[in-house]
Amino acid sequence: MTEPTTYRTGLGVSDADSITVLGHSLADELLGQVSFGELAYWLMAKQRPTPQQRNLFEAVLVSLADHGFTPTAIGARVTLLSAPESIQGALAAGLLGGGDRFLGVTENAARFLHDALESCDPLPEDAHGWDALATEVVSRTRAEGRFVPGLGHPVHKDGDPRTPVLFDLARRNDLFGSHLELFAAIGRTHSAVLGRELPLNGAGACGAVLADVGLPLGVARGVALLARCAGLLGHLAEELADPIANDIFMAVDRNVDYRPPME
Amino acid sequence: MTEPTTYRTGLGVSDADSITVLGHSLADELLGQVSFGELAYWLMAKQRPTPQQRNLFEAVLVSLADHGFTPTAIGARVTLLSAPESIQGALAAGLLGGGDRFLGVTENAARFLHDALESCDPLPEDAHGWDALATEVVSRTRAEGRFVPGLGHPVHKDGDPRTPVLFDLARRNDLFGSHLELFAAIGRTHSAVLGRELPLNGAGACGAVLADVGLPLGVARGVALLARCAGLLGHLAEELADPIANDIFMAVDRNVDYRPPME
Amino acid sequence: MTEPTTYRTGLGVSDADSITVLGHSLADELLGQVSFGELAYWLMAKQRPTPQQRNLFEAVLVSLADHGFTPTAIGARVTLLSAPESIQGALAAGLLGGGDRFLGVTENAARFLHDALESCDPLPEDAHGWDALATEVVSRTRAEGRFVPGLGHPVHKDGDPRTPVLFDLARRNDLFGSHLELFAAIGRTHSAVLGRELPLNGAGACGAVLADVGLPLGVARGVALLARCAGLLGHLAEELADPIANDIFMAVDRNVDYRPPME
Amino acid sequence: MTEPTTYRTGLGVSDADSITVLGHSLADELLGQVSFGELAYWLMAKQRPTPQQRNLFEAVLVSLADHGFTPTAIGARVTLLSAPESIQGALAAGLLGGGDRFLGVTENAARFLHDALESCDPLPEDAHGWDALATEVVSRTRAEGRFVPGLGHPVHKDGDPRTPVLFDLARRNDLFGSHLELFAAIGRTHSAVLGRELPLNGAGACGAVLADVGLPLGVARGVALLARCAGLLGHLAEELADPIANDIFMAVDRNVDYRPPME
Repeated sequence: MTEPTTYRTGLGVSDADSITVLGHSLADELLGQVSFGELAYWLMAKQRPTPQQRNLFEAVLVSLADHGFTPTAIGARVTLLSAPESIQGALAAGLLGGGDRFLGVTENAARFLHDALESCDPLPEDAHGWDALATEVVSRTRAEGRFVPGLGHPVHKDGDPRTPVLFDLARRNDLFGSHLELFAAIGRTHSAVLGRELPLNGAGACGAVLADVGLPLGVARGVALLARCAGLLGHLAEELADPIANDIFMAVDRNVDYRPPME
Repeated sequence: MTEPTTYRTGLGVSDADSITVLGHSLADELLGQVSFGELAYWLMAKQRPTPQQRNLFEAVLVSLADHGFTPTAIGARVTLLSAPESIQGALAAGLLGGGDRFLGVTENAARFLHDALESCDPLPEDAHGWDALATEVVSRTRAEGRFVPGLGHPVHKDGDPRTPVLFDLARRNDLFGSHLELFAAIGRTHSAVLGRELPLNGAGACGAVLADVGLPLGVARGVALLARCAGLLGHLAEELADPIANDIFMAVDRNVDYRPPME
Repeated sequence: MTEPTTYRTGLGVSDADSITVLGHSLADELLGQVSFGELAYWLMAKQRPTPQQRNLFEAVLVSLADHGFTPTAIGARVTLLSAPESIQGALAAGLLGGGDRFLGVTENAARFLHDALESCDPLPEDAHGWDALATEVVSRTRAEGRFVPGLGHPVHKDGDPRTPVLFDLARRNDLFGSHLELFAAIGRTHSAVLGRELPLNGAGACGAVLADVGLPLGVARGVALLARCAGLLGHLAEELADPIANDIFMAVDRNVDYRPPME
Repeated sequence: MTEPTTYRTGLGVSDADSITVLGHSLADELLGQVSFGELAYWLMAKQRPTPQQRNLFEAVLVSLADHGFTPTAIGARVTLLSAPESIQGALAAGLLGGGDRFLGVTENAARFLHDALESCDPLPEDAHGWDALATEVVSRTRAEGRFVPGLGHPVHKDGDPRTPVLFDLARRNDLFGSHLELFAAIGRTHSAVLGRELPLNGAGACGAVLADVGLPLGVARGVALLARCAGLLGHLAEELADPIANDIFMAVDRNVDYRPPME
């Protein structure tokens, strides 16, 4: 038997008389005084957001909350159909789809921009400088046979409507930092390198915003998951009130093309 | 082959030029104009909250976000230790603990109060009337051998600090409705029936608030899950920066009391 | 700081030189000497199965492994589509559908038969006695407004092909015990009580078998989950080789009937 | 509205009278005639295993089923503590830990060996040739700053007891193929390259076996998950009968070292 270990945390702790979250009395200093978005940022960054950071963080959450019948929503709904006793199971099933293909763009864009900036000292001072950097970054990425995350969209081919609004919000909140500068410059310059015009998608813009807002990169995907959590709960509430998951199930089950393996 | 089915939803939908959420243009009418808490309520209730409803809803989310090293936080952290490549898996693992024992109180309290009120017509008109109803409800519940959800707390034995603050917020927002009236009356009267004084816990108060705020009961647990999602992401961000999950694993693995089955 | 706790287990433990599972050397006494089904039973029951128990247990697992495009399979496949980097996430999403509606029958039937037998002393001695007990049990259940679990099937209306084979296997392995006796008697007698002929479904038969085979009731659903795990991995392997999840997604996403909430 | 899609599968399908799995009548040709391990292989590989392939596949499953209080077992148990109503949620939480760090070795070893062999034509014909190939592969991997998966073990420093047994089983079943040859040769030659003697661990040996046994590489991790599913169900059955998860929770919660963030 060994000595008991202690476990470090700076989040929540409670005793008989009080609940402390992030060093503050939950009842006296937080309840009714911070928004949920503000607290979520604070919990993830271990730093209280400024009002400007909070504005942008909430905008990112609103931006990523729901996009209709995504695979995550379908997964959550069919799971509720099959296990109606466990709303947490249906929600978890939906969130498990929050991976590389659908929710990963936000994180990947944040990391891509971060990595490109890390080796760049000093940073460009004007649009001309940002365009030169963006051209170099896109060229290098293309030469490596990789894609630029945040560029292109399967539906919004002529422009993702969220991107200019997020840019504008960042400017109005004085948070249009180096990640957004580079992302915007990629939008201006990529077609000269790639030979075609692609939109800067909203998920990528969210990644750029989160990096400029000061969130740790390791939880950028977590922000997308928190946003999607609200959307999925909307789908589950709707499924409880006006179910369609059984129709999905039937549409698949009744249209099977059976091809047993040969022996 | 059958005709293609259509799938009803009132949440999100998009086409090449626009993204619509809850009937509104995401870019033009929502981004930067609604808080994340407001959107989450709207998605779950399919009705835009009033500013008062939003205040209370956000307070409930803040109230339930984190309570330190709960089993949900431990589950999320050890899963990240074991599968560091999938933050969505670690988050989902934590949320799966959002069940009857730890997160269920909020939902159970909301349902309990709702059921007690449903068969009560007309509702009491003054504190005396609420106390009489509460006494009857607690007596009946006790006679059935069941517990009153929201009553009692393993740690805050002399009172959960969140409860009076939530009551006060509800009053200041003109949303102290029938569910909170009955819950408060249970707090005043239960000791005469049960023979001992128990605190009204914060999770139960949150359930009463959610019912008065107009959320569908079926998603009350979902609200607790959304709140906990932020707390778990805080734990995962902290685990990435300052890990303790391996210490938990070691503390268990090195203190095994092995008792193989007899044959 | 408190004394370190110790943690009891009789399953696996290892040190530098050996791995012990259920009190046996994994390398010297188990590997190559027990089938996976046998080990799974042993782990769940903490008792090594007889060859007969193992035969029946493996038959139940084979029986429940796959039924085509169930909601669990759809959930697993759309999750893999969305998060291809995490096969464990896709598998977990599918298993989360293993709840009351689709996988619960096995557990519910086992518990139903167990409860009916518990209050019956002595047990019937012949078919006549079992029929009388079954008639009483079905009548009582109907009077309580509940359904008899294991009775009826949405597709196999004239008889589930698995049921007679499981009965026959149980007889040939000398394990046709009191749960199967009662279940078979329900099959013979229910129509006189209920006024219509319903099939004894395979999931219910599996529940009766598991109870007679000596598994703890608390893990009956777990057996169904283990079986389904193999089926879901088949779906995931097939999805990797010949994907259809995107077709499901498109079939839903392109046939939206959008009905935004009114304000 | 578009034409209904059809969905290809070769696994299960059913109609009113029959259930077909992998092209065979479940009731008449599979139930009681194939073991669960055999069916699991068949579902994943879409090819019926030979008796020899089945022997090795079941040995791999037995080998990976349980290793005591791993993070996956801890995650499953604390989830059951917190949400006792959902055994599928607790199982899923445990499986979500089946990722890169603990269960990934099996898949990574299989891929590593596969990739090394793919570019090698013709294959070595004797031990001398295998040793030369292994030396080259280990040298190249080291030069790239990467580790050889399957080499080394935190506990079994002088040799994993499973490895020689799996080698022996493969030889006796005539399935000691090119992946096992290369893996064994790595065991003989790596110390000359790396300057220290490391054990060939059991998870790596399982990966080599699965590759030689003909499983698609994409589901190698799935096999480890299926195996672990049985172990986790053992932990959940044990937790129901003799709980320890609350002790884990208390040991963590009572030994908090609270360090709120500075402001």
